[in-house]
Amino acid sequence: MKIKELGERKLVNAFLSSLKLPDGVFPLFDDTQAFTLGNQLISFKIDTFVFSTDRPKALAAYDVGWKAITAVASDMAAKGASPYLFMCSLSLPGDMEEEDAISLENGMNDAASEYGGHLIGGDTGEAQDGVVAISGIGLHPDNIYTPRTARVKIENGDIVAVTGNFGYTSLGLNYMLGKIHLDDPILSKALEAFRKPKARVKSGLALSNLGAKSSMDSSDGLALTLSELSRLNGLDVEIKEMPIDDDLKNFFETNYIDPTSYVFYGGEEYELVGIFPAAAEPKLSEFGFRAIGFTNKGTGIIKYKDTVIGNKGYEHFK
Amino acid sequence: MKIKELGERKLVNAFLSSLKLPDGVFPLFDDTQAFTLGNQLISFKIDTFVFSTDRPKALAAYDVGWKAITAVASDMAAKGASPYLFMCSLSLPGDMEEEDAISLENGMNDAASEYGGHLIGGDTGEAQDGVVAISGIGLHPDNIYTPRTARVKIENGDIVAVTGNFGYTSLGLNYMLGKIHLDDPILSKALEAFRKPKARVKSGLALSNLGAKSSMDSSDGLALTLSELSRLNGLDVEIKEMPIDDDLKNFFETNYIDPTSYVFYGGEEYELVGIFPAAAEPKLSEFGFRAIGFTNKGTGIIKYKDTVIGNKGYEHFK
Repeated sequence: MKIKELGERKLVNAFLSSLKLPDGVFPLFDDTQAFTLGNQLISFKIDTFVFSTDRPKALAAYDVGWKAITAVASDMAAKGASPYLFMCSLSLPGDMEEEDAISLENGMNDAASEYGGHLIGGDTGEAQDGVVAISGIGLHPDNIYTPRTARVKIENGDIVAVTGNFGYTSLGLNYMLGKIHLDDPILSKALEAFRKPKARVKSGLALSNLGAKSSMDSSDGLALTLSELSRLNGLDVEIKEMPIDDDLKNFFETNYIDPTSYVFYGGEEYELVGIFPAAAEPKLSEFGFRAIGFTNKGTGIIKYKDTVIGNKGYEHFK
Repeated sequence: MKIKELGERKLVNAFLSSLKLPDGVFPLFDDTQAFTLGNQLISFKIDTFVFSTDRPKALAAYDVGWKAITAVASDMAAKGASPYLFMCSLSLPGDMEEEDAISLENGMNDAASEYGGHLIGGDTGEAQDGVVAISGIGLHPDNIYTPRTARVKIENGDIVAVTGNFGYTSLGLNYMLGKIHLDDPILSKALEAFRKPKARVKSGLALSNLGAKSSMDSSDGLALTLSELSRLNGLDVEIKEMPIDDDLKNFFETNYIDPTSYVFYGGEEYELVGIFPAAAEPKLSEFGFRAIGFTNKGTGIIKYKDTVIGNKGYEHFK
């Protein structure tokens, strides 16, 4: 079977299943892999941005660099790590202008600084597609890794909380692809969300103090992220409140748009989705989290009011 | 100016010049970047294999995986580090067969094991070119980094020594491209050298004990490597003996071929080139090194007998 018929998730899972982690390196299916050196727990990660599948033509080279670093920083944040060092592999199309390559590099450098890290080296060459691979090393200040599969048993009534707003990124993407018309303030917010997402490093560093039992980066979309956490932990999740702001709520209402597909199936939000003990609720907002629902023992069913939210989301090629 | 007009080396140098290393991370223009965590000196590296520029059609997917890991392991070896963990970013053409993708992964896993390391994770997706980016973390067992710019002053008469044989890889590449005819034993050796080069991890780990002042991986070709070491350290190098074995010597003589271009300008050898104090000579062979010449204070001129070896070698796109 050809790769394009397989789909990205099957390809990644087949690859990860072929690996054997040495003693002290864990976990295989998570946002980062971690290991200890001396007394320091370290997260190690690589992630890839491909022009032909990830870049709308209207997305500036600077934004490509920003997003590529943000994707890695977000995975680190979701595990409770602080981004430290980044390396990049830049394979760029031969007809790309030098000034665009420099913009891309500036985007990477600025994003690395934004997250308290540093881009310290890399490799640059030409390819028939643009491929930006970012590798990162993050440090866990308290040596705690917040995994997808809960590190503390999840109870009925634990809180599901997220950072930020969902829905803007897929509006921004659809606008850039010329599929929808938008006006301010939605337009500005949607473009900002898609072009310059922010990894939630500060929220991530608060996960262990908040007693987070489980956490995951939402870059594949809120529905897929919730489904994955539910499946791994034997849960159902009941969503009480959609994570959107008032502007977006008004926009959906005014235009008679069902927000579900934008909010749950959008992707590229780079927000954190965590499961917390009920006792953490009063402190969540201080660290950028908002409760959106709660857990029950179950079989991976995600419900918003009476709607079952399917296990689907953003995936390349399928 | 478009990237294809710039050339790879200018592109890499422009990129590296844009970086600012934080305290404790060094050096910028070297085979790896290094930093200390706790009491452990660590090398961090990323390197890229691009199908459209690095893969002759006859090169099997398994070999692509092997070579991609080897390139990173070799850079670590050249600095005196032991490869520990690898992550890969696999961007593969959609029409690649699943079994070829699995072969590629097997090649990566086998090479990582060969070097005492482990492939522990990564990212897989589709692109219009095949791009394999490998990131690696290596540990310096004695906390010594052997840099390109000598860590101990180089004297007149210091020894230039290399591991392995040069010349076979470019013969292998030219054979695979259908440009030359070869018979055994040269054919087998040339194909093995190009398909399954071996990073010299054991030799690299001996660098500090041998008192190596400077070292570099030879993957851009012997001439470029010697020129870079000479330029950085204010040296001329006089080559007394070409690093080839008897079979290759006979082959060049029998066929009236000037070995210079194959030996000095070939590239992809993944051998180590080091500068050692004269006192190290008796111990070099025990660790896989062979003296090929010596240093004089100078301006970067490389001479083999009466021939000046130019500062040129393998470079993509120019």
